[in-house]
Amino acid sequence: MKNERILLSHGGGGQRTSELIRNLMLPLLRNPILDRLDDSACLSMPGTELALTTDSYVVDPIFFPGGDIGRLAACGTINDLSMQAAEPLYMTLALILEEGLAVADLERLLSSFAAVLKETGVQVVTGDTKVVERGKGSGVYINTTGLGVRRYATSGSVAAARPGDAVLITGTLGDHGMAVMSRREGLRFESEIVSDVAPLWPMVRALLEALPEIHSLRDPTRGGLTAALCDIAQASKVAVRIRETAVPVNPAVRGACGLLGLDPLGVANEGKAVVVLPAKYADQALHLLRAMPLGREAAVIGEVIASPAGVALLRTTIGGERILTVPVGEDLPRIC
Amino acid sequence: MKNERILLSHGGGGQRTSELIRNLMLPLLRNPILDRLDDSACLSMPGTELALTTDSYVVDPIFFPGGDIGRLAACGTINDLSMQAAEPLYMTLALILEEGLAVADLERLLSSFAAVLKETGVQVVTGDTKVVERGKGSGVYINTTGLGVRRYATSGSVAAARPGDAVLITGTLGDHGMAVMSRREGLRFESEIVSDVAPLWPMVRALLEALPEIHSLRDPTRGGLTAALCDIAQASKVAVRIRETAVPVNPAVRGACGLLGLDPLGVANEGKAVVVLPAKYADQALHLLRAMPLGREAAVIGEVIASPAGVALLRTTIGGERILTVPVGEDLPRIC
Repeated sequence: MKNERILLSHGGGGQRTSELIRNLMLPLLRNPILDRLDDSACLSMPGTELALTTDSYVVDPIFFPGGDIGRLAACGTINDLSMQAAEPLYMTLALILEEGLAVADLERLLSSFAAVLKETGVQVVTGDTKVVERGKGSGVYINTTGLGVRRYATSGSVAAARPGDAVLITGTLGDHGMAVMSRREGLRFESEIVSDVAPLWPMVRALLEALPEIHSLRDPTRGGLTAALCDIAQASKVAVRIRETAVPVNPAVRGACGLLGLDPLGVANEGKAVVVLPAKYADQALHLLRAMPLGREAAVIGEVIASPAGVALLRTTIGGERILTVPVGEDLPRIC
Repeated sequence: MKNERILLSHGGGGQRTSELIRNLMLPLLRNPILDRLDDSACLSMPGTELALTTDSYVVDPIFFPGGDIGRLAACGTINDLSMQAAEPLYMTLALILEEGLAVADLERLLSSFAAVLKETGVQVVTGDTKVVERGKGSGVYINTTGLGVRRYATSGSVAAARPGDAVLITGTLGDHGMAVMSRREGLRFESEIVSDVAPLWPMVRALLEALPEIHSLRDPTRGGLTAALCDIAQASKVAVRIRETAVPVNPAVRGACGLLGLDPLGVANEGKAVVVLPAKYADQALHLLRAMPLGREAAVIGEVIASPAGVALLRTTIGGERILTVPVGEDLPRIC
C-alpha cells in the first residue's frame, strides 16, 4: 500500500482502517501491549507517582530540516514528561489524516516517530486514526499523550526556583523555529538551519542521577526562552535575570532572526531545557551537560534573585536591562 | 471574550492562549491538579493496574441532536475505559481549533464536556490548545486520553467470549449515527432522531459489582453492532449468533436507515454496550440493566457457539441466516 494515498475510508473503522494499522503502523510500533489492539491499553506501573501530558502537533510543513512531525510528536511529549522529572514509559498516538495524504509520507513520519521511541525505550500502547476530507486538515495532525513515572526527589516544577539559584540552558536557542520558518517561507541561508528536535530524557536523567538538587526544569518551546523564564519567575514568585551575551545562538539563526525582525529568545526550541538549580551545583551541571551530545553548548546564562518578583530580566549586550515579556499571540504560528 | 472569535494567536502559546485557558477553560474544568498548569499532570494512583485509551473526535457537525463534540469526547473515552472494566479517573483534553470559531460555540461544547465529567467524577488534569488557519480544520477537533484503574476480576477483553455465553445489548441501535447524519444532510423525519451519547461507566460498574462473571464488553461505535460482534468472534475464536428480531431499534431510526439504504446494525452508537457473559447470568444482567435509565431497552440478542469460529451470524426476521461482515470503509464518515 506504500504507493497509495489516504482515503476517507482509511478512517472509517472498517477493513481499510484495519489494513492501515496492521500493514503500516504495527510493523513500526509493535509491542505486546499494542499488539492486543484493544480500545484501551492495560498497564502495570512499576511506581505510583505518575505524570501525564498531552500535546497536539500541527507543525506546517510536516517535513522540515532536521525532523518531521513524527519525530516532533515523540520528542515533544517525552520532553514534557522529562521536565517534570518523570521517566517516560508509555505513549498514545492519535492521527488526524487529511484525505489524499501519500501513504509513503505517513510511513516516513511514523518511522521517525518509531526511531525516537526505540532510542528512548518508550512504548506506544494505544492509538486512534481518523481521516477528514481534503481541505479540512493539513496533511497530518498528531496527538500524543505520555505517561511517566516519577522516581526522583526533584519535581522539576516551575514554582520551585529560589533566589541564589543559577539558570542554565542546555544549548543554542531558536534552531527549531527558524528551521520550520525557513522551510515554510522558502528562505535560503548560507548554511542551512536545522531543527534541534530531540528527546531530552537521557540528558535529564543523567542530571537527576548526578546532582543532589535541581529546582526547576522547563523546555523553551512555543514562546521560546522568554516564555519559559516568565513562567518560572511568575510561578516561583522570584526574578530571573539573564545576560544576553551568555545565551548561545547559532550565527545562522541569529542572521535569519535579524532578517525577519525576530528575537531568538522568543523562538521555539524542541531539544533544549532551562535548568534552575542552587548556584553551588552549576559547575557540576555544566560539566555533565557538555559531556553529552545534546549539551555540548550548554551555558550558565543567569541567576535567580528575590525581586522584582514575577519578572524575567535581560541584561543586554550593550549593558542595559529590559523586562522580557511574552507576546500577546505568537510571531510564528504552527511551529509545533 | 464570549462574543469573540478564535484567532490564530489563541494557539500561539502567548498571552492570548493564557487568557483562553484562564477565562474559559479553567472555570469549567478546574481541579487542584489542572490548576497547577504544569506541562504534565502529576498523579498518585490508588491502584497499579491501569488502562489508557486515546481518541480524536472529528464529528461533523460539531452540534447534533442529543449532543455535541464536547459531550462525545468525554463519553467516548469514558466508554473505552469502561469496556476494559477500568474505572475512569483522569482525562486529558487537547483542542485543535479552526481560526474563526465562535468562542461562544467553544464555551458551549466545553460546558457539555464538563457536565459529563461532573456526572462521572472524572477529572481533566492536563491539556493543550492549538489553532490552525481557516480551511485547515473544521471548527473543532478534540483529542481526549483517558486513564483508569482496573479493580475488577473481569478484563472485558473481546478475546474472552466462550461458547455457552449469552450476548446482550444495553439498548436501541443506530441512534447516534442517524442523529448526526440527519443533521448533516438536513433530513427531517416525523420524530427527531436523538443521539444516545452517554457515559457508560455507572451502568458498567453496576454490572461488574453485581455479577460474578462477565466475559466481554464492547461499545458498538464506528461500524456499529456488526463490527463489535465481528471483533468478539475473531478475537475469541468463537461464533456469535444473534437474532434480528431481538435487536432493539427505534422506529424512526429504522425508517431513516431504510430511506438511506443503511443497515442499523452497522451504524455507530455512543451510549450502548455489548455484554457477553455465561448464559446462567443473562436474566440477572437483563433485570439489572432494565432498572437503569440507560438500560431500559436492554435485550438478550443472541449467544456464543463454538463454530464457525471467527464469524458473526445473523438469523434474519424471515428465518434465514447470513454472515455479518465489516464494510471495507464506512458508510458514514466523521460520525465520531
